[in-house]
Amino acid sequence: MNKKNILFSFALICAALPAFSQDPDSIMIKKLTDEILLRGKAYSNLYTLCKTVGQRLSGSEGMYKGEEWGQATLKASAAERVYLQECMVPHWVRGAKEYAGFKTHKRANPRFNVLAIGNSVGTGKDGVLAPVIEVANFDELERRKDEVKGKIVFYNYPFNKTLLRGAYGDAVRYRGGGASRAAKYGAVAVIVRSVTGAYDNNPHTGALNYNDSFPKIPAVAISTMAADKLSNCLKDGFANDNLSLITNCVMMEDAIGHNVIGEIKGSEFPNEIITIGGHMDSWDPAEGASDDGTGMVQSIEILRAFNAIGYRPKRTIRIVLFANEENGGRGAAKYAETALANKENHIMAMESDGGAEYPRGFGCGMTKAQFEKVQSWRKYFEPYDADKFTFSEGGGGGADIGPLQRNFKTPQFGLSTTGQRYFDMHHSAIDVFEKVNAQELHLGAAVMATMVYLVDKYGL
Amino acid sequence: MNKKNILFSFALICAALPAFSQDPDSIMIKKLTDEILLRGKAYSNLYTLCKTVGQRLSGSEGMYKGEEWGQATLKASAAERVYLQECMVPHWVRGAKEYAGFKTHKRANPRFNVLAIGNSVGTGKDGVLAPVIEVANFDELERRKDEVKGKIVFYNYPFNKTLLRGAYGDAVRYRGGGASRAAKYGAVAVIVRSVTGAYDNNPHTGALNYNDSFPKIPAVAISTMAADKLSNCLKDGFANDNLSLITNCVMMEDAIGHNVIGEIKGSEFPNEIITIGGHMDSWDPAEGASDDGTGMVQSIEILRAFNAIGYRPKRTIRIVLFANEENGGRGAAKYAETALANKENHIMAMESDGGAEYPRGFGCGMTKAQFEKVQSWRKYFEPYDADKFTFSEGGGGGADIGPLQRNFKTPQFGLSTTGQRYFDMHHSAIDVFEKVNAQELHLGAAVMATMVYLVDKYGL
Repeated sequence: MNKKNILFSFALICAALPAFSQDPDSIMIKKLTDEILLRGKAYSNLYTLCKTVGQRLSGSEGMYKGEEWGQATLKASAAERVYLQECMVPHWVRGAKEYAGFKTHKRANPRFNVLAIGNSVGTGKDGVLAPVIEVANFDELERRKDEVKGKIVFYNYPFNKTLLRGAYGDAVRYRGGGASRAAKYGAVAVIVRSVTGAYDNNPHTGALNYNDSFPKIPAVAISTMAADKLSNCLKDGFANDNLSLITNCVMMEDAIGHNVIGEIKGSEFPNEIITIGGHMDSWDPAEGASDDGTGMVQSIEILRAFNAIGYRPKRTIRIVLFANEENGGRGAAKYAETALANKENHIMAMESDGGAEYPRGFGCGMTKAQFEKVQSWRKYFEPYDADKFTFSEGGGGGADIGPLQRNFKTPQFGLSTTGQRYFDMHHSAIDVFEKVNAQELHLGAAVMATMVYLVDKYGL
Repeated sequence: MNKKNILFSFALICAALPAFSQDPDSIMIKKLTDEILLRGKAYSNLYTLCKTVGQRLSGSEGMYKGEEWGQATLKASAAERVYLQECMVPHWVRGAKEYAGFKTHKRANPRFNVLAIGNSVGTGKDGVLAPVIEVANFDELERRKDEVKGKIVFYNYPFNKTLLRGAYGDAVRYRGGGASRAAKYGAVAVIVRSVTGAYDNNPHTGALNYNDSFPKIPAVAISTMAADKLSNCLKDGFANDNLSLITNCVMMEDAIGHNVIGEIKGSEFPNEIITIGGHMDSWDPAEGASDDGTGMVQSIEILRAFNAIGYRPKRTIRIVLFANEENGGRGAAKYAETALANKENHIMAMESDGGAEYPRGFGCGMTKAQFEKVQSWRKYFEPYDADKFTFSEGGGGGADIGPLQRNFKTPQFGLSTTGQRYFDMHHSAIDVFEKVNAQELHLGAAVMATMVYLVDKYGL
């Protein structure tokens, strides 16, 4: 593209008009969003988090380094009070690198790139040695349940790229519940196709939940390319051969973790609390940049920007870096439980945990009356093309703020993004700083800050 | 993010409902877009273009290799007739690597990362040796015009990140017209801050246009980091020192280039032509992946997908890979001129030349009545969040299809994307395949195909 001046100038006028209109809220919102787009610190904060802290799995050394980073960053971003809220968190350790390969020696012995699934039991050093049975989905597992005993079940369920915002929810069932469903029929381990639309040799981990009624069996995620290779092997002579699967993970005793909290006291209604957050913990193969470093730095940026433009909130703004979202949700539970015990008044909660792609709006979990009020503010989001508000009565915000809604019926906002790149890297070795775009990250923070400003000023 | 199943399932239902509704157009559009999202070839075609052809600057060997690739890819994508349309194109050659640095020897001699601006004259091997005068914008140039003579003018105008879709049009004036405006006052060369929101050491080239009333002087783009470094040097003791600037570029005789065209004849109205395209040429520092490999492969994908699902268009669909968009627009001019000479009937034109980020809709250059018809189709675009249609009477499509509108009043569609990453790489060494996301690329093609299907079926 070279000569788009005319087109761009036209788009410029369209985009700029509402932002330049003269009502006081428009003026304040423009000041706020300009501060973030021009002088935002979210990107440099994310760099420090990713490159000096790195992975932050619950119970790991990285988690504690992350908590230090969180406190320091909140203090540097104008939080008046920074404190820790203790909670016990699971402490799962991956151990040495996993192995999966045929050992038949009858010809080439193919190997496959796998990662143990979080919370899973290890195989022990001798590993599991068993034939593999591939199933396309749970229906096929049920139909073929008599063939499963003593075998490794391989769930080869693809990420459905036509479900633009539903593919993860659709496919993650195999990672989350596949082990116990196979164990019910006597399987000795499971291999799950990575929950991603990317086609590469990069496996994606994540958590599973065992059903206590069945034996706990080992579980690994396999890269999408390796899944196809394994499937081809099974069709091409390896159907009755033993696969050797070794995972070295172990679930330790619970560890002490913390929600890291920073707040500014409200000038008019200090007892009305607005909670905004992302989660501190991340999977161990990478830096947890998009899951969920971006959510933390966007949340913190709101405080910094309010302070930088001299805006004093009427309500108390509390930034929460939640512990243990990935494999337990203990931080979210502790936060909501403490709020209940302290009889706090939570008027709004917001979460960013879908990466920092271009922001399209919010998932809104609230009453219809509250949603109508939110809809009346759409004009402030149109200049950013971030005016898609989707309604869900009693849901829709995210895993970390959900418990607040259950306790207090607190209205929820989940930042929603275009979201097509997030699952390419999610829970894998490529969830790194370099995959995040500075402008998209800051735009997301600007859109979040705009909504917080409006709710702070007008209530909900 | 881990436990978003509930949220995602909800979003899935919202997103999927319109696409699954039972009117025949919804069914056909779902078939078409599923074909592209599940089995699209745009991404693999882009890989081949980027990695076996590479840069395709007008007149270069790469341009001819690109034309071969285009013909082969159109044939493999179900075009019934593939042909070349000859046109003369400018042939500008960069030559050896540029140099910019102070040579005062009074202390460290800072150097700066620059790229000659396309179409510019070279300095000759001895280079230009002159002091630098920095100006923030054209206003400052005018105010300080008496200081310019014999100097190198440094336009240090920043990319305004608050103008989400207007920053390029706002800043590119300095690259396009800055040389002649400085030459008017006796400048001997210009240095232009790269037209990008990225902060790195990567200069971005692009074209300039000389005003024949003034001397043609050398011109370079400087990386954003180097621009700040140069600005600091000028404040810190180098204000009166000579900068040595060497560029080795030269404008050769015009070369023979071609528009590469592939078409399917319409089954009912073969004389009604729908033109869809991107441009073949690209700047030389990289692979022209996003500018505009993506536009070409998205356009070609429409033909392939129509054929794959067995849809025979009523109107003639013509895919045009335009020559010389970047530094001349000769391909676009030739195409419109030929259409006029042949008394063709052009009922619609579409262009993709803004990269393959998430598609947000179309810039629509047409009459109000036509735009109303387009608006009535929004429901087909809502499932993809690609329903932002912006109206511009008599403009708005893009550089390559613009001449068609001037000749025939042909309604224009320019694919519009979220567009925040494009200018990070645009015209620079990082405009490579690896920066393109497969799903976003295919979504763009799906959205384009949907509009083409509707116009083909119902006219405009």
